[in-house]
Amino acid sequence: MNHDELRQQLTTLHLELPRQGLVTWTSGNISARAGDGMLIKPSGVTFDDLTPESMVRTDLHGRRLDGALSPSSDAATHGYIYRHLPHVGGIVHTHSPYATAWAANAREIPCVLTAMADEFGGPIPCGAFALIGGEEIGAEVVRVLGHHRSPAIILQNHGVFTIGPSPRAALKAAVMCEDVARTVFLAAQLGNMQPLAQEHIDRLFDRYTTVYGQR
Amino acid sequence: MNHDELRQQLTTLHLELPRQGLVTWTSGNISARAGDGMLIKPSGVTFDDLTPESMVRTDLHGRRLDGALSPSSDAATHGYIYRHLPHVGGIVHTHSPYATAWAANAREIPCVLTAMADEFGGPIPCGAFALIGGEEIGAEVVRVLGHHRSPAIILQNHGVFTIGPSPRAALKAAVMCEDVARTVFLAAQLGNMQPLAQEHIDRLFDRYTTVYGQR
Amino acid sequence: MNHDELRQQLTTLHLELPRQGLVTWTSGNISARAGDGMLIKPSGVTFDDLTPESMVRTDLHGRRLDGALSPSSDAATHGYIYRHLPHVGGIVHTHSPYATAWAANAREIPCVLTAMADEFGGPIPCGAFALIGGEEIGAEVVRVLGHHRSPAIILQNHGVFTIGPSPRAALKAAVMCEDVARTVFLAAQLGNMQPLAQEHIDRLFDRYTTVYGQR
Amino acid sequence: MNHDELRQQLTTLHLELPRQGLVTWTSGNISARAGDGMLIKPSGVTFDDLTPESMVRTDLHGRRLDGALSPSSDAATHGYIYRHLPHVGGIVHTHSPYATAWAANAREIPCVLTAMADEFGGPIPCGAFALIGGEEIGAEVVRVLGHHRSPAIILQNHGVFTIGPSPRAALKAAVMCEDVARTVFLAAQLGNMQPLAQEHIDRLFDRYTTVYGQR
Repeated sequence: MNHDELRQQLTTLHLELPRQGLVTWTSGNISARAGDGMLIKPSGVTFDDLTPESMVRTDLHGRRLDGALSPSSDAATHGYIYRHLPHVGGIVHTHSPYATAWAANAREIPCVLTAMADEFGGPIPCGAFALIGGEEIGAEVVRVLGHHRSPAIILQNHGVFTIGPSPRAALKAAVMCEDVARTVFLAAQLGNMQPLAQEHIDRLFDRYTTVYGQR
Repeated sequence: MNHDELRQQLTTLHLELPRQGLVTWTSGNISARAGDGMLIKPSGVTFDDLTPESMVRTDLHGRRLDGALSPSSDAATHGYIYRHLPHVGGIVHTHSPYATAWAANAREIPCVLTAMADEFGGPIPCGAFALIGGEEIGAEVVRVLGHHRSPAIILQNHGVFTIGPSPRAALKAAVMCEDVARTVFLAAQLGNMQPLAQEHIDRLFDRYTTVYGQR
Repeated sequence: MNHDELRQQLTTLHLELPRQGLVTWTSGNISARAGDGMLIKPSGVTFDDLTPESMVRTDLHGRRLDGALSPSSDAATHGYIYRHLPHVGGIVHTHSPYATAWAANAREIPCVLTAMADEFGGPIPCGAFALIGGEEIGAEVVRVLGHHRSPAIILQNHGVFTIGPSPRAALKAAVMCEDVARTVFLAAQLGNMQPLAQEHIDRLFDRYTTVYGQR
Repeated sequence: MNHDELRQQLTTLHLELPRQGLVTWTSGNISARAGDGMLIKPSGVTFDDLTPESMVRTDLHGRRLDGALSPSSDAATHGYIYRHLPHVGGIVHTHSPYATAWAANAREIPCVLTAMADEFGGPIPCGAFALIGGEEIGAEVVRVLGHHRSPAIILQNHGVFTIGPSPRAALKAAVMCEDVARTVFLAAQLGNMQPLAQEHIDRLFDRYTTVYGQR
């Protein structure tokens, strides 16, 4: 896919964020690895106003390479992840409400659903608090997801980052992360959640990653 | 209804799943008994991309009979149910959030609403945990629903299966299952749910199945 | 308004019920007093399928006067209310989820919001359990609302009835009932709801019914 | 922007209130400072029926200057705020459900999210109960927001007021207020919310107000 096609795809994928209820106003963003740099949402622009041309090309330190718009203030974090995890082709960041509620409790989302075992291979981990602005957030994402089955992490008091081989795969992980965060939240309110056995989690994850879908 | 009409109807009914908030991304599926086999959603395809032609025809063990797409990974479960419950003409499977939250607590949904007595004739039962892949899930659905008024079952840590004489009837049961799962969840949070007397449940169920609707 | 206009208006108002999230599938209905009888939704018809012609004309005992469709199974209840409360010109019935959750706890919705004082003049009362089929539900609605400021009642284990001088006024009450039922539910979860003083409720209700809106 | 443009903009912004789930039926309103007076929503008109011409021009005591429609019954409150806070160019008032649930508990919304530190610079304060009709509500808003970073206040047992240099900025604050009110509500239900350190709040707020967005 060339850069023009990638800009078009990134614009279309961004529209899924409000459609799926993952973002409010201008928060949240998606990026795609593009050559030795990346493409990412411009900062502070509403989703209705995004165009393929408005996507900002930066290097992997989040510095703008061309164009007039400033990149997302999360660009340095995205770049850090691309630099340290070479298999990652797309990244999504949101403050989706249920996942962020778990994050505000500094609590991983426990794996009590077969759909979670399928998609995340276990609990969705919660990373430590880190301030925006430098490399702390990216470092925390890489530290946790670098050795984890889950393509999603929640960060304490902050929100969600998901990774994938493509922006679309990362978007799917962000959508499913909020979906299971909600169902497990509801389950927790009922007061008697049943854990899944590790053996069952392993078998479900293995099956999902080798049998599910079209091949 | 011939197979072409059934494919068209099945496609239309699938669109109700996201519209009613019962599914996320590619999860969830509907099937229809068709001759001595069935038609079912293809695996891992998003709802926006479904067409009548994409519906997969399988035998009642979930093995594809023709076409290029793989059937839903739940096809063996659907087939098992059709083989053992001859009055069933349609099946719906979802991970709808409120019903699945009850399932993650391994807890039946108690019958505290007249609408539940009408539609389900009592509580919505919760089946035991079963792994996907073989016949365990289908066997659990048949074991419980085979002698139950309810056309809906929740399965521990998993989600919902509903049955009906037609795919549309099974869809109605799936929609109403999530609706009452939500209202009863909210009622449970308020802390003082009032049970319905069995005699009232019986009278409501009897009336609904003999008087309600157009005849 | 002649009967044709009333049928058209009733059809339009019914579409607000799913749009506002008050109903699921075929449940819920609106009626309008029409001459010495009434017009009401047909039984078991989905909201997408309603037409002005499908509205059923009945007497005030809920018996069909003409046409081919059966009236809502709640028609006898609506008729009872019209017979006993001559100022009522429209009635709405729903199982809207938050209001029904309060009803499943047999608990009135406490008046902790200025918007509730405005619209309902105090708490929304909860009537006793009554079986559908005879005059019990209508009698309970009349017994409670006959001497109450509130145009809305919730019925134990069942749902909501609202009344008004017109079907549109009753619909507004049903929409606002669910709105405040939700906000007060959320407030209750936070654990420290502050009551409104009766004197403040009285002043708010008085002002709203004499100053608010266009005159 | 001349008055005609402002009327058009105000109409468009009002449509965001139901779209974002902040209002029900006719409640909620937006105003814009206009010359030495203001423009505001007419009282008791549904959002679907608003037109640029229907916006009511009043003085800063909320008294209509021309036109046939009565202004919002909150006009005196808006006027009081404009008179006492000269930097305010737009005001939004809603009863959005999650924020109002906190208000019904007379409880400020604690700052446990980086997005709250960004947007509100700390907790969203809760003002004392005040009756509509005179200047009490306006005085309470000015008393609290006059010396606060937050552009949003919740008022006990009532709802939300937000201010901004423009109506659009005030709308953004109202949307974000409900968004964080919901996420923090959910976080509170999980039972172990982690506070943000004051030092982190300060650094986030400073960065957001100087670096975020396009310049």
